Amino acid sequence: MNTNETQTPISTLGEFGLINHLTEKVTIRNKSTVKGIGDDAAIVKYDADQETLISTDLLLEGIHFDLSYTPLKHLGYKSVVVNLSDIIAMGGKPQQITVSLGISSKFSIEAVDELYQGITLACDTYGVDIIGGDTTGSETGLVISITALGTTTPNSAFCRKGANDNDLVVVTGDLGSAYMGLQLLNREKTVWKANPNIQPDLDGNDYVLERQLKPEARADIIRFLNELEVTPTSMIDISDGLSSEIKHICEASQVGVNLYEDKFPIDPTTVQLAIDFNLNPTTVVLNGGEDYELLFTVSTKDFDKIKGNPHMTVIGHITDKSFGENLILKDGHSIELKAQGWNGIKPEEE
Amino acid sequence: MNTNETQTPISTLGEFGLINHLTEKVTIRNKSTVKGIGDDAAIVKYDADQETLISTDLLLEGIHFDLSYTPLKHLGYKSVVVNLSDIIAMGGKPQQITVSLGISSKFSIEAVDELYQGITLACDTYGVDIIGGDTTGSETGLVISITALGTTTPNSAFCRKGANDNDLVVVTGDLGSAYMGLQLLNREKTVWKANPNIQPDLDGNDYVLERQLKPEARADIIRFLNELEVTPTSMIDISDGLSSEIKHICEASQVGVNLYEDKFPIDPTTVQLAIDFNLNPTTVVLNGGEDYELLFTVSTKDFDKIKGNPHMTVIGHITDKSFGENLILKDGHSIELKAQGWNGIKPEEE
Repeated sequence: MNTNETQTPISTLGEFGLINHLTEKVTIRNKSTVKGIGDDAAIVKYDADQETLISTDLLLEGIHFDLSYTPLKHLGYKSVVVNLSDIIAMGGKPQQITVSLGISSKFSIEAVDELYQGITLACDTYGVDIIGGDTTGSETGLVISITALGTTTPNSAFCRKGANDNDLVVVTGDLGSAYMGLQLLNREKTVWKANPNIQPDLDGNDYVLERQLKPEARADIIRFLNELEVTPTSMIDISDGLSSEIKHICEASQVGVNLYEDKFPIDPTTVQLAIDFNLNPTTVVLNGGEDYELLFTVSTKDFDKIKGNPHMTVIGHITDKSFGENLILKDGHSIELKAQGWNGIKPEEE
Repeated sequence: MNTNETQTPISTLGEFGLINHLTEKVTIRNKSTVKGIGDDAAIVKYDADQETLISTDLLLEGIHFDLSYTPLKHLGYKSVVVNLSDIIAMGGKPQQITVSLGISSKFSIEAVDELYQGITLACDTYGVDIIGGDTTGSETGLVISITALGTTTPNSAFCRKGANDNDLVVVTGDLGSAYMGLQLLNREKTVWKANPNIQPDLDGNDYVLERQLKPEARADIIRFLNELEVTPTSMIDISDGLSSEIKHICEASQVGVNLYEDKFPIDPTTVQLAIDFNLNPTTVVLNGGEDYELLFTVSTKDFDKIKGNPHMTVIGHITDKSFGENLILKDGHSIELKAQGWNGIKPEEE
């Protein structure tokens, strides 16, 4: 939070005043938005040849974000993106969001504005309308609840279920950077708390910081796949970590998987940071999460269409369920994949 | 919270375990629900001749509810009903909800189950499907964020805008009871805190307590109006109090209004309680809120159709905007209507 500028207490606006203040600049861009903010409910109307997708996320201060190092504008942006990522991971086109905020009285209007600027920037970037929400006081921390609506043509959504034996496992972009960005921010916070005179050492780490603080949803991939005429057999976005996401696909599709450690796409900065933090980069990729890349499976007949594409990496293949879920290490050994989340990331033994 | 039964820490389940535990009993009843919980986004599909309505509410511990006297099952039920009431107040048929919960570790699984039982009971009562949500830990209080989806035929939604000069102002049920229920609960809590040996004195007040703790949304009214072939020119539900709701209608419709104090429907228990609390019953009706009754306007030509209907009371009429928004007191004096919320309810001078 920028504390150098003039801060106006929210109490000067009142609840209705705050709602008006936040929503007066909201514009409607989608034809499917019949009625937005300003009534008991919003109205959206899709064509007869479309299905509606709905996704929702609840973000709580102290659990999902730390206001001591998260710029509010980035937080607003990310709050929207994580929801749009869910719609996109179903192959859908995001169209509308609702935004509910619980705001403690310690917040100034400028702070709420900064948060909302990030929200509207994400809406501008992804062509999405804000159609409603709820704004209320909070006696505890900041609460952000966003619900996204999107559309697909009927029976064309990419689900967790659908992966078949021999399908290729593909991931977009690179993995693990968002987690290392978080580690870096936490380390500098600890250093700063111990000695407030020390300036944060974040130089040269712009990439991992941006991956953590301002992730993007891969709408571009859905367009690429459409242009390439590749139809994924299953898809999910990577919010909790590669390991738990591929396990969701295997469970829903009733299949097994082999992932190959040496294929994992990791940015060099991320590898170096993991080493600096005494962490195994593979463990960071498997359990770090928050990359908001897409994980999907395609039939082997589509391999030629995606081969060499800089946005996509084949990291393994689907097997019969009886073979289980495995990680093939660089040395050729096979170990069972486990979804451990952040608990699974521990410093290596010296 | 019932503290007599065995309590199991949520930590025994883990996050995914808790989600599975909460959602395994969720059933799908609406044909429009293509895919519910278990993927990145839910899929709903409505007919080409329908519009989709969306409403969302965020409920925070300490702001919207007090767990010291709110049974969790009732809280779950009410959390759903307040959202459905918004869909119904647009003339829509509620169809699906998403449920996001932020739960502190002090909660037991039994407590979360009780909350969820109330949520599913409301879904059973109103024929609504739970299609997704988000469950997360909370470092502060309980957070409940619910989004409801519903349908109407195109261009038939009842909005705040639409009231015309001379239209009648109609309210359903009676008003002020939910607020007096809350006053009663707060008083007994204060007494109990001062002396825990004194039993709460809630006898004879079942009606106001139920209105506060377990309100219902008036889906029946939408059916009645349909059967009577009455099309309201505007409609809103009463969540914040009659005064602010009628002002929303006047502002959106660019009209004025005269409300008549002697027409306000108030339950005798509520009148007596208000007097006991040294409050003016009219002020309670105007500013109390949380009744979740419907407030709407109809053309005078529809008067004969609703006249004498026990569920509906004509409490005033719409005027030209230039006449303003007025309350005609029992003694014939006219005063300006103000939306004061709970701040407007003060004990009377002795």
